Parts: sequence; structure tokens; C-alpha cells
Amino acid sequence: MVEFVGVSDIVALVGRFGVEAILTEMADYIEADYRRWPEFEKTPRLASHSSDGVIELMPASDGKLFSFKYVNGHPKNTAVGLQTVTAFGVLSDVDTGYPVFMSEMTLLTALRTAAMSALAAKLLARPESRTMAIIGLGAQSEFQALAFKTILGIKAVKAFDTDPAAARKFAANMAESGIEVEIAADAASAVLGVDIVTTVTADKAKATILSDNMIGAGIHINAVGGDCPGKTELQADILMRGKVFVELTEQTRIEGEIQQMPADFPVTELWEVIAGAAEGRNSSDQITIFDSVGFAIEDFSALRLLRDLARRAGLDRSIDLVANPADPRDLFGLLRADAPEALPVGA
Amino acid sequence: MVEFVGVSDIVALVGRFGVEAILTEMADYIEADYRRWPEFEKTPRLASHSSDGVIELMPASDGKLFSFKYVNGHPKNTAVGLQTVTAFGVLSDVDTGYPVFMSEMTLLTALRTAAMSALAAKLLARPESRTMAIIGLGAQSEFQALAFKTILGIKAVKAFDTDPAAARKFAANMAESGIEVEIAADAASAVLGVDIVTTVTADKAKATILSDNMIGAGIHINAVGGDCPGKTELQADILMRGKVFVELTEQTRIEGEIQQMPADFPVTELWEVIAGAAEGRNSSDQITIFDSVGFAIEDFSALRLLRDLARRAGLDRSIDLVANPADPRDLFGLLRADAPEALPVGA
Repeated sequence: MVEFVGVSDIVALVGRFGVEAILTEMADYIEADYRRWPEFEKTPRLASHSSDGVIELMPASDGKLFSFKYVNGHPKNTAVGLQTVTAFGVLSDVDTGYPVFMSEMTLLTALRTAAMSALAAKLLARPESRTMAIIGLGAQSEFQALAFKTILGIKAVKAFDTDPAAARKFAANMAESGIEVEIAADAASAVLGVDIVTTVTADKAKATILSDNMIGAGIHINAVGGDCPGKTELQADILMRGKVFVELTEQTRIEGEIQQMPADFPVTELWEVIAGAAEGRNSSDQITIFDSVGFAIEDFSALRLLRDLARRAGLDRSIDLVANPADPRDLFGLLRADAPEALPVGA
Repeated sequence: MVEFVGVSDIVALVGRFGVEAILTEMADYIEADYRRWPEFEKTPRLASHSSDGVIELMPASDGKLFSFKYVNGHPKNTAVGLQTVTAFGVLSDVDTGYPVFMSEMTLLTALRTAAMSALAAKLLARPESRTMAIIGLGAQSEFQALAFKTILGIKAVKAFDTDPAAARKFAANMAESGIEVEIAADAASAVLGVDIVTTVTADKAKATILSDNMIGAGIHINAVGGDCPGKTELQADILMRGKVFVELTEQTRIEGEIQQMPADFPVTELWEVIAGAAEGRNSSDQITIFDSVGFAIEDFSALRLLRDLARRAGLDRSIDLVANPADPRDLFGLLRADAPEALPVGA
């Protein structure tokens, strides 16, 4: 049997432990795994592109646990009432190859992306940062706001979306969060005077969500929405003015904001900052940019945490995903009518 | 919700429809998909190797359905009562990226590998073939015997394994199959005089299960066990004497018997024979070799068939793997205590 955390289970776990506590612990799990980055087998994700979107498989392994995430990205889905991104994932035991844990990861990815953003900002933004702009108020926006509140101490968020309904949804969801929310009339007024800007729009296009003249000295940009080939949010001039940090360089050159730049455009991998092998921000005037596309180690960390939370909560749900014949060479024996393993359907 | 077929379900489905009927229909599904081979996106599997085994992700897509299989190969597992190979898989809708069907695939892979072997032999072996040797009597052996009986009309099997317990298990499982089974004292006496030889041993090593002097004219060799780098079963001389057929050339050159041969060693892809674009056997004296390593399209076909069988049988089991918020941009809303989607754990 494989331990299983479904949508209803993760909702219950978040209800029990609280979103902010989970975000904080998630950032800790990711930081711990990033610190031992060289121990991981790192593979750029395997992507299957179609006209309307992409389906990706993202594996990672530290030699003891293997993880992978299935995730899609289909921007047109929202027009028919479906989500742009859905995901699920698995942890396996490397020694035996057996899958041991499976979970929904749509909600889990939202939590891990927000935790990763806040972790990067904790390392790169000016320590006195207290205000943030969020451009793009879709499924990820509330998670971003809460992660920056709880991990960085952000007090106020100026929020903008081209769709007023999305802005109303964001404001309503944040009403009791303790964050001071202001809905901005446009992106330029949202970013005016803030310490941190998060861009998390969903259009599958080269867009200019932030132009160079909107970005003042000392700001930290958390660029989340430019995450596949042909999809960017920042004007290239901003990248040239700032210092750019990435997850896995070879993946980000294909999928991130720096797909706009030459192949030798200088970047720093975030794990080096965490491990003390590279500098983060060099001065309080510097513009720092986290060009985030999401990397498999973050999902590895998220699955590890979720398994631990499920165990702490005493969740006990599993699915019969792996056949377990009494004699491993006698798989055929499972099909005999008298096999004890041949449980009735639905058992 | 995602339709789900667990181990207990597939056992029930096989009980209802019968192994041989499923093997026959499986070969038909694979043949139909191989005939439209150019329509598929083909990617060599993504493999994560460790000291004791390998974990692989095998994707395929025909532009409408995307499939992937998770599968491991750990030869030492049987020593601790675990299986060498376990697997599960998923079908997704390419238009939305949503997973729609998940199944155990340990049993399903055993069925599809046997169906694929028999399909290849139907195309390549001499039509009058009635006898087969099986070398290696592990988890795959009974499925091979039944597939060759039902799809090719094989009447008699000479079987050999280095472990007498495996041979006893095979003979017992085949007792009521209608196949005449003879346990051979060694591999050489097993292959003596037969029309077809299946090699399906599990050692992760370059082995010589079949040497050149054991193989007479006109034989068809179904080489199943040489399926990863460093793992082969046939002496290279046999490959030079015969005509070699493969699934996807670039994958087989890394994983199959032909990893022993130069990179330009001539092979024919099986789909070309099915589509009428290449010749199969050229004469009744020719040795034909199916250098089988397993390819993702076969799993695509197997998942398609299993979903159809589950629907025919009225199976109605699903898991809550995909979050489904009423407003797709309001993923956070799922976490509100009053969200109708927030079912209790285990619901």
C-alpha cells in the first residue's frame, strides 16, 4: 500500500496546522534541501508541449528518496472553469524503487512556490522590507501574501490585476489575514514605493508586466510568472540593471526571464547563497531579481514535509497502487481465484 | 476526481474477462497504436540510476491523450521478498492537462510485455511455430506462455530456470492452461528443436543466456530480459547471424541486446513492419530477433485498454487527486472552513 494524501486530506491538514505555520516550515524544509544541493541528482524537467499548454514530469533524488511531480500549465483552462495548473507527486524509496507516498500537489505547489519566493526574498531583499506589490491576483496570489507576511514580516500589500473580479477575490480572501491590502489602479501605482514586487501573471506570452522605469533602486523582484518558453514578465533592461538569482541555471535559461538574454548572461544560483558559496545582495541600492521557474528539489522538500505532517496528524489513508505477491516471482499467482491478495474491488 | 484502478481492481477485471482474452485485446490495442506510430511524441525514458536499480518515467502522447508510467527495476529486491519491477501509470487529457485515469501497472506491465512479445512473434516467427522455450521463470514467464498460446497457437513450452523452485512455480501455475509444459535441465536442452525462444532472465549483468551454437536456422528469439544498460542475454554472434527488430532504435541502442554492437548495426523498427513500410522475416531459414526493452507507447495502449475494461465492467472507483475549486483562480478559497470542497479526511 502507498500512503495517500488527497485534496480533502491536505485541506484538513492545512486546517489543523494553519497556512502560515506550514509556509514557515516549508521554507525551512526547502532551505535544508537547498543547502545540500550537490547531493541531489538534478535533471531538467521532461516537458510535453501542445498548442494550449504543457505537461511536465519533474524528478529529483538525493540517493535515498526519489520524487517526481506531474504538473500541467494550460492558461486557457480558466475560461472553461478549470485551473491553469494542477499537480500531483510521489516519493519513492531509492533502495527498492517502491513508491511509498502519493499526494495531490495543486495546493501543495501553491504552498511551496510561495514558501520558495519568501525564502529567496529573506536572503535577497533588504532586511527592513515591509511592503510588497503583487501583480497578478490568480490562484497563487494569496499564498504569496501570507508567505511574505509570516516569513519576512511584510505588513502591507498593494495588489493589481487586469480583472477587477480577481482583485475583489484577493481582497476578500485577505480580509482577516492581518495584512493591509490596497487594490491598485494599475501596475505602475502598485509598485510605487514598495520594497518587494512579486509578478505572478498567467498569460502564455512575452509580456511587459514591469518596465524599467517602474523599478527604483534597492527593490527586490520576485518574478514567478515567467516560467516557460515564450512566457516572460520583465523588460530586459531590468535584468541588465539588477543582479539575477536562479534555481537551476540550465532550466532557467530556457524557461525564465533570462530566456530574453544571451546564453552567457551572468546569474547566481540561489543554493550557493544558502550554502554560503556566493554573495546575495551587494548593497542596499542594488536591484535583486529572483527569476523563479520552480525546481524539482522544492517539490521533493514539499512532499517530505507533507508526509511528515500527515504522520503527525495521524492520517491513515492509502491506495493499493503496488501489487504485493507473497512470492515476488509469482506475480501470476495474484490472478488465481484463491489468492489472498485478490481483494474485492473497492476494498 | 481521477478514475482509479488499484491492484484489487485489476485482479477483479482479469477474473471477469480472463487473462487470455485480455492478452489478445492488448495485442490489438498495441498493434493499432504502433500502426499510427508517426502520430506519437516519442521520448526516451527518463531514468534515475542507483547502485541497486533504476527508477524510470516513460511518457508518450498522441496529441489527445498523454500517458506516463513510473517503473522501477531492482534485481536484488526478490532476495528481501519484494518484486524486481513495480509500476503505476496515468492517462491525461492533452487539451486541459488534467490527469483522468490512474492505475497500478505491475500486473498491467506483465500483461502488456507478454502481449507485445506475442504480437512481434506473430509478425516475425514462422507461421507454423507451435513450440517455445522460456529461459527465466520469474514474474513474467506465465504471462509469456499464455500470450504465445492464445495469440500464436503455441502448444508446448520447454522451460528452464537456474532455480528449481521457480520452475516448480511455473509448472504449477500452467497446470490447467492447456499448454504442454516440460521443465528442462538446462538452457541448451530447453531450446533444442523449438520454434521460438523467449529469454526473460532478471540478472543485472552482461550474461550469455543464449550462445550462438544453441540457435538453429529459422528460430525466432524474443529477447525480453536485456532491458537496461549493462544487462544483456544474447551472445553478439547471434545478433550478427539474425535480423534484429526493435521498438525505438535510439532507446534500444542504450538498453537492449544491441548495446553490444556498433552504433550503426542495422535494425528494423517493428512499427514499420506493422505499417507495411518494412519487411519482417525474409525466409524460413532466417533467425529473427525481437530485441525488446519495452516502450512507452505500449504502456499508453495498455492504459487505454484498462480504462475501457474498467468502464465495460462498471468499475466506479476514483481518488481526489485534483483540486477542483468552484472559481479556478480561487484555489485559496478551498482552505476556507466553509468551502464545500473541503470534505472530511477519507471522504
